[in-house]
Amino acid sequence: VDEAARAACDEHQLRLTKPAGSLGELENVAAKLSAIAGTFPPPLPEPAALAVFCGDHGVHAQGVSPWPQAVTTQMVLNVLAGGAMTSVLARGVGAEVAVIDVGVAQDLPQTPGLMHRKVAAGTADMTLGPAMTQEQCRQAIEVGIDVARDLVAQGNRLLATGDLGIANTTPSAALVAVFTQTPARVVTGRGTGIDDAMLAHKISVVERAIEVNDATADQPLAALAAVGGFEHAALVGFLLGAAALRTPVVLDGVIAASAALVAARLSPPAVDYWFAGHVSAEPASRLAVADLELRPLLDLDLRLGEGSGAVLAIPLVQGAARVVREGATFESAGVAGRDE
Amino acid sequence: VDEAARAACDEHQLRLTKPAGSLGELENVAAKLSAIAGTFPPPLPEPAALAVFCGDHGVHAQGVSPWPQAVTTQMVLNVLAGGAMTSVLARGVGAEVAVIDVGVAQDLPQTPGLMHRKVAAGTADMTLGPAMTQEQCRQAIEVGIDVARDLVAQGNRLLATGDLGIANTTPSAALVAVFTQTPARVVTGRGTGIDDAMLAHKISVVERAIEVNDATADQPLAALAAVGGFEHAALVGFLLGAAALRTPVVLDGVIAASAALVAARLSPPAVDYWFAGHVSAEPASRLAVADLELRPLLDLDLRLGEGSGAVLAIPLVQGAARVVREGATFESAGVAGRDE
Repeated sequence: VDEAARAACDEHQLRLTKPAGSLGELENVAAKLSAIAGTFPPPLPEPAALAVFCGDHGVHAQGVSPWPQAVTTQMVLNVLAGGAMTSVLARGVGAEVAVIDVGVAQDLPQTPGLMHRKVAAGTADMTLGPAMTQEQCRQAIEVGIDVARDLVAQGNRLLATGDLGIANTTPSAALVAVFTQTPARVVTGRGTGIDDAMLAHKISVVERAIEVNDATADQPLAALAAVGGFEHAALVGFLLGAAALRTPVVLDGVIAASAALVAARLSPPAVDYWFAGHVSAEPASRLAVADLELRPLLDLDLRLGEGSGAVLAIPLVQGAARVVREGATFESAGVAGRDE
Repeated sequence: VDEAARAACDEHQLRLTKPAGSLGELENVAAKLSAIAGTFPPPLPEPAALAVFCGDHGVHAQGVSPWPQAVTTQMVLNVLAGGAMTSVLARGVGAEVAVIDVGVAQDLPQTPGLMHRKVAAGTADMTLGPAMTQEQCRQAIEVGIDVARDLVAQGNRLLATGDLGIANTTPSAALVAVFTQTPARVVTGRGTGIDDAMLAHKISVVERAIEVNDATADQPLAALAAVGGFEHAALVGFLLGAAALRTPVVLDGVIAASAALVAARLSPPAVDYWFAGHVSAEPASRLAVADLELRPLLDLDLRLGEGSGAVLAIPLVQGAARVVREGATFESAGVAGRDE
């Protein structure tokens, strides 16, 4: 990113008709948008598009989720029909929604808005071996890169991450455990809502997956293939692709953050292109966001996924850019400065 | 508010295609909107209008702010011209901005969008006696009631509070000290940005104002007149007026929250109509919001005032309503429930 453009934004913000620093984190957002764009003022990050990457998980067979696996397909169709919560929220903020089948177990129909990029019909059970082969993982990463490129080519200037996949908080917890070197019992959460017994079981599943595959952070691609999911791999590509295209991305919750940890390990400077839309109720979310040294824009106990938290943060990112583009300076507005 | 409508919303949210409770605080917002409207689903809280109440403060003479008092007038004109940060942010979220002179020291020109309701040319110095007479305070409250009524009559379905007034964090701190029974040194903050010496002085000014006027929470109107400002009194009326009209209000930072403490003392059920848009960097903001038992929607270290934090929270409130109005249910979308 362009540190001179960031500095130019910071300098300009001192001249806007407000006390220095009084827009708090919004000022950091504006400066980061400038650094990303390589220019001041930054372009308005509009229009925005949400990419919802969808996949199934072999580890579902271990009983880590109370939801049947078929719900992944049903929810994909619900998003496409505009009835899912993330669809509703995206409509509210004027964001386009792209849905990508990167690894759903069932076959999906041809539907407007659905991109068919299935690598396989769900991952393998990661407690028995790698969830993906290295080749499958590479293919899923490429899907994410392609989607970022397509959405930017279509004129989008802000991207948001979304995901769908029953049981996908389990691989997310495994990735966060590996990449932040935190015990599984600390990072593993209740996902969509499980009881104490299922949580204890889920923790043991995460531990087993990491151990069986000997997943370690110093071999990030191997770890991603071993304990990740197709949505996670696609998100890694999406995040790196967006960074390569100098396009800002708003991260949703724990699935996005776990993928971001992998992407940051592969390319540390890419973090400069990402905003943490929110911190979710999953413990791994806060850990991952802190590890990435990002500050979440929202903290509302969301734990839905689908991109819902990222979409809710879009107006904040756009507002930050608008302020530095349209706000009056002391000079232009004829407002006196501080006495000093 | 209508608890049956709140319960109907909560019940409906269990049927939406998402894990129970997974939209966190957004679900509480939706249920509260239902309770306010007395119906489920609640109407979309659109369009939204921001009311910026403007006044000057006699206590400015005590040297509690680094900014000249004339900046109040200059900033009023800046808001009206659309260049102030809050104007820019309001434009971004499609909110109308109404500016009300309820007590600016200087005369203001006839300008579109400016309502001339000046009660007096600034308050008196509260360290020497009451800031307002009881009659002035009553008049300012009426201005707020009138503005709420006018904005609702014009079709607005969500209101947001704003304020302008150099030195107005000083009366805000005094009000929060009185109404939360907290020492001045705890509630008093750096406002638009002051150094340690000026902060120590500001604390002593707040202490003196409370002591000189013998301001106590059990005489709320007398305390408001004694250590409040014209914007504060108008906000009290605005908040009570909106509640009487069953219209939700998003509170900005410490000025709004301090006025809300007074309004809540006068009419405790009115709190059910308010949302805390954010918690600001001023210590009194967090205290007041906690005392009101509201959960702030944003926590971004904003300390600008003008309504900026309230405006930023508007899309969250609107999103919450949209979800319960437009989201698909398990039944309507053909999505399976949990296995249990």
